[in-house]
Amino acid sequence: MDKELVKAVEGAESVAIFPHISADGDAIGSSLALALALKKTGKKVIVYMEENIPDTFKFLPGIELAGFISEDQEVMDLNIALDTGDTGRLGTRADHFFKAPVTINIDHHITNTEFAQYNHVEALSASTGELVFLLLNEMKYEIDTDMAKCLYTAIATDTGGFKYGNTTAETHRAAAELLSTGIDVAELSQKIFDNTTFIKLKLTQKAIELLELYENDSLSVIAITQDILQSTGARDEDCEGLVNIGRSIIGVEVSVLIKEKSSNEIRVNLRSKTYVDVSEIAALFGGGGHKRAAGCTIKGSISDAKEQLISIIKDKLNRR
Amino acid sequence: MDKELVKAVEGAESVAIFPHISADGDAIGSSLALALALKKTGKKVIVYMEENIPDTFKFLPGIELAGFISEDQEVMDLNIALDTGDTGRLGTRADHFFKAPVTINIDHHITNTEFAQYNHVEALSASTGELVFLLLNEMKYEIDTDMAKCLYTAIATDTGGFKYGNTTAETHRAAAELLSTGIDVAELSQKIFDNTTFIKLKLTQKAIELLELYENDSLSVIAITQDILQSTGARDEDCEGLVNIGRSIIGVEVSVLIKEKSSNEIRVNLRSKTYVDVSEIAALFGGGGHKRAAGCTIKGSISDAKEQLISIIKDKLNRR
Repeated sequence: MDKELVKAVEGAESVAIFPHISADGDAIGSSLALALALKKTGKKVIVYMEENIPDTFKFLPGIELAGFISEDQEVMDLNIALDTGDTGRLGTRADHFFKAPVTINIDHHITNTEFAQYNHVEALSASTGELVFLLLNEMKYEIDTDMAKCLYTAIATDTGGFKYGNTTAETHRAAAELLSTGIDVAELSQKIFDNTTFIKLKLTQKAIELLELYENDSLSVIAITQDILQSTGARDEDCEGLVNIGRSIIGVEVSVLIKEKSSNEIRVNLRSKTYVDVSEIAALFGGGGHKRAAGCTIKGSISDAKEQLISIIKDKLNRR
Repeated sequence: MDKELVKAVEGAESVAIFPHISADGDAIGSSLALALALKKTGKKVIVYMEENIPDTFKFLPGIELAGFISEDQEVMDLNIALDTGDTGRLGTRADHFFKAPVTINIDHHITNTEFAQYNHVEALSASTGELVFLLLNEMKYEIDTDMAKCLYTAIATDTGGFKYGNTTAETHRAAAELLSTGIDVAELSQKIFDNTTFIKLKLTQKAIELLELYENDSLSVIAITQDILQSTGARDEDCEGLVNIGRSIIGVEVSVLIKEKSSNEIRVNLRSKTYVDVSEIAALFGGGGHKRAAGCTIKGSISDAKEQLISIIKDKLNRR
């Protein structure tokens, strides 16, 4: 890590930390861990949020260090953006971010625009939590159980519980060190991963009911209309993860979740297992992503969108 | 690890490996990894199975080294039982196991009866896969990607994907070394964990439909009758994991799965999150387990069993 960056952190007496908008486990966990560590050395620290912290992560230590920027907010010595690919991901906090005399940007997104004075972007790292872990090690800050809980949450969520392809030997080495501090991994995993609601379960039930298989069961399609969301009482965000239901079936290569945002706007999530490049399919509709996970928005009715997608995917499946 | 045990492995020219009956990911993965490693040093090796290897694990390297004991089976220099707590877990292979001039027992179950000549029982280890990993390191055998796939499968399955309380810093250190060999963790995780069937999904749908909440949503109950299994086409073993549906709901402390084995025999799975000791509940019916996961069998009708369980659990929940 850049020695100047480390010096800038060590030298600051007051620090504000900026996780990205719609902050996830990695953004929140790495921010709170860094805040706790800096606080422990006597610095004045705040984590500036764009929105409220999601219920799932409210149990994390250091939550009391998180807040919102007020109208006449004082400017800190140092502002650090974490897990934030570009200034757009700072949302309404972008102006305030650049007011500090020193700015730092620590991130693992390959698309990072290096918008700060000091930038540490490590695209091969599975999470920003891993990078904060390394930074704390480099500064020789002792990681206590509270910081470890936050960093473990960051790392575990961004790697899907050490299952995604971004997981490396370094990820597990970091997890080993964090577990050594004495955190209760079963309790923590439960809080992070076992947190569904009855309504979300009912939506899952409906999604399985609606799941259709095509092409010798190699294509799974789930279409969720606004009517279904309303009848189950589920919110839009409750659909997160539903695309994995289809993907979990043996023999399914492509799994599609088609969600009616409005009568004329359809959101599509695509997953594949071994050979279909779903980013190519998403690109046909102006979307994007990776080979195995991509998404796009289609204008039109949900039935038209479904028909188009099935036709295109069937073609891809048969070209193997 | 006992130097005599290591010498016994190194000195044998032919070795048979015995995973436990109803072999799971840890038993199969650690057995195949050890078999591949010993084979590579020129030894004659076979893995003696009690049953066919489950479909989920048929992709594992070294599967060609697994087979069954024939009537006039030759006796090897060394027999090694893996992940096997007692001789009962050797099933019909127990007699043959003791025919070898040297026997070894490597396991992580605290209840292990140390039935072999050399016993290496490490109850604090999360999996036998971890112990085989350490043994190979001690013997300075290089772990190749094939062995790493098997050991990773062993470790990941027995720790529920590094989520269970048995996961330690050592577990992650082993995983780090295994990933360093270049295994594709995303592909492997998918094969191990994303392998449901359409029928099992339909059973999940039905289970959510039947899920009932009691005591201010702190108790979740799912009752599966034989009629339900028959109507979905699901088998008894498809019910595995259904108890986790209830446990995954925020606010649920105790989750119960009640399964009708026959009109007069009810199988019960119990899970809790933070304070109810479900092993005490299971013990009331002659069952057992741990504080957070236990099971028992109740004689009688499914409706009677359900009524009794709800009454007992309500009492436990209110005694907090």
